[in-house]
Amino acid sequence: MDVAALRSELPALERVVYLNAGSVGPAPRGAIAAAEVELHDQLEAARGGGDHFTRAITLAGRLRARVAALLGCDPWEVALTGAATDGINAVVGGLELGPGEVILTSDEEHPGLLAPLALARERRGVELRIAPFAEIASAVGPRTRLIACSHVSWISGRIVDAAALASTGVPVLLDGAQGLGAIDVDVRALGCDYYAASGQKWLCGPIGSGYLYVRERALESLAPIAPGYSSLSDPGRPLDLPLADGAARLDRGVPPTHQAAWSLAAIDVLADAGLAALYERAARLAHGLAEQLAATGLTVVGRDASTLVSWEARDPELEAARLHAAGFLVRQLPGTPHVRAAVGAWNTTDELERLAETATSTS
Amino acid sequence: MDVAALRSELPALERVVYLNAGSVGPAPRGAIAAAEVELHDQLEAARGGGDHFTRAITLAGRLRARVAALLGCDPWEVALTGAATDGINAVVGGLELGPGEVILTSDEEHPGLLAPLALARERRGVELRIAPFAEIASAVGPRTRLIACSHVSWISGRIVDAAALASTGVPVLLDGAQGLGAIDVDVRALGCDYYAASGQKWLCGPIGSGYLYVRERALESLAPIAPGYSSLSDPGRPLDLPLADGAARLDRGVPPTHQAAWSLAAIDVLADAGLAALYERAARLAHGLAEQLAATGLTVVGRDASTLVSWEARDPELEAARLHAAGFLVRQLPGTPHVRAAVGAWNTTDELERLAETATSTS
Repeated sequence: MDVAALRSELPALERVVYLNAGSVGPAPRGAIAAAEVELHDQLEAARGGGDHFTRAITLAGRLRARVAALLGCDPWEVALTGAATDGINAVVGGLELGPGEVILTSDEEHPGLLAPLALARERRGVELRIAPFAEIASAVGPRTRLIACSHVSWISGRIVDAAALASTGVPVLLDGAQGLGAIDVDVRALGCDYYAASGQKWLCGPIGSGYLYVRERALESLAPIAPGYSSLSDPGRPLDLPLADGAARLDRGVPPTHQAAWSLAAIDVLADAGLAALYERAARLAHGLAEQLAATGLTVVGRDASTLVSWEARDPELEAARLHAAGFLVRQLPGTPHVRAAVGAWNTTDELERLAETATSTS
Repeated sequence: MDVAALRSELPALERVVYLNAGSVGPAPRGAIAAAEVELHDQLEAARGGGDHFTRAITLAGRLRARVAALLGCDPWEVALTGAATDGINAVVGGLELGPGEVILTSDEEHPGLLAPLALARERRGVELRIAPFAEIASAVGPRTRLIACSHVSWISGRIVDAAALASTGVPVLLDGAQGLGAIDVDVRALGCDYYAASGQKWLCGPIGSGYLYVRERALESLAPIAPGYSSLSDPGRPLDLPLADGAARLDRGVPPTHQAAWSLAAIDVLADAGLAALYERAARLAHGLAEQLAATGLTVVGRDASTLVSWEARDPELEAARLHAAGFLVRQLPGTPHVRAAVGAWNTTDELERLAETATSTS
């Protein structure tokens, strides 16, 4: 793949060694340009008119189809949300669950997944069970109604054994915040019922964008937790709550045109580089970084063929700040002794060698 | 007030007679420029770094304070939502309500309020009672736990008798979609517990912006319906669900910087024109339009000192389309025989005279 071409689309890379797409990815030139076109359209045209609404609906439809292709599903199985957490809340809050029923999760989950689970426990008396990330499937019991866990652990970068989860027969919600856009995703092969993804991380989309895959068999059991005008098939009889077709009933309204255009153009930039090549290169670079860090005596945690590399530091907050000052945009993982580098296909071996040297030098 | 100066900030007014801020308001030049500055900052700087996060938090804080001043409350009583419907869902979904308890509403409500109520009935067995808009307070019964209705009816433009509602002692949620930015709002004087406002309508902000006022005494009884990272005071222990201080716990994440900057700059444009003068002029123009329409024999419905003027048409959809083709951006109200003009201070008497003539000529 043409790394120089990809890097030239991402000007933030000139300022820092960008290793935090696990939080928010770099913004592409083409995406910002596309957003600006839509801002100007909103300025000049009447936003309150039917033409603008039609344009917004059209862009939303294109985005849904584009993301469905990335996920390996049909467009009507995709909801346009505002974040991975939105999708997780839509599932955990949308299912009829109560006392005596168990949601099974893991010990490597993000607050954006755990907070919705905590709410289900507090408000609805659902029981939570927490298993080690590698042993989730074997912790399924007769009262387990949902498995909710990461596709790729934000802590260790490990990839969940989705086949083992699917074989339990319990519906599976995967938190794909470190999945979609970072590694190849095929929701049918994963066998999950729900896959919640971020737009602003590995897909380099705007903050406030995300996606939720809902498998056909799982849609009818999911009530929208925050229904509005666009959830309805017939806004003329809202008290009957007639829901729109497909996962679109779970959309967070129609995305603003500048947000949708940004999302689409950012995916174009990644697709132009070649998605398979992008995934392969990012995983290879991450693997190389992990080996270099380990070779210099650092303790690298977990790992798998993902884009995340975490290692132990005596004072992870201080170490992240020190690396940041040296030009490396890494992050500390709160509540853990870990510093994490989120490696993108846009990184270079030179950048990662320098990180390994710098991280080593004072640990 | 300087109408020409205000109009020059709103280029969409050159294309159409803009009478649909009740759906989406015109976008101001300064707001689009402010959004572009933030898009470029996101392009050039590292969005994944602490500096960007700090910038986003700072803009969110400024926006919260600015909107609190508009509402007449304290900043910590304001949540940054994505739409008025978001705020309504946060209240209706966030309260502990169940069978045997009643939510009282009116016969002039928007699907964005009715859909959340329908969900409360369907999922939690809450009873709904619907009273005529002018008689809500007298329909309160011993099992009424919440009054949820419009501040200004989107159908008739009538303003609710908030004092009568407050005197019932039942918590009141006002849907302020046609209130904040259109007429003077003072949540303390209104005596409501919750006020849900839109950002994209009368405040001319971006689609995907909204605000929720929650009175101090009402905050603790409200659980976030979709908690995430930013709902928590301590993201290090999400399973305990320690909630952030104030209404910010109900924020829909931290707004993207370009959205917050747009919102702030749009409020600046309105404030530069003078908010009191803006409200006075819009109400006066709307009153004049209603009189002209009535004088030509049309049936104007409801009315009050608001910015909405609705009238009956034999075929309202066709009439709205015909007026649209003639350059008037009005809307038909689905499920009613009404066409509605949402009059802004940016309109001129000439525009409204022409509308009255045109609407009359073929009805």
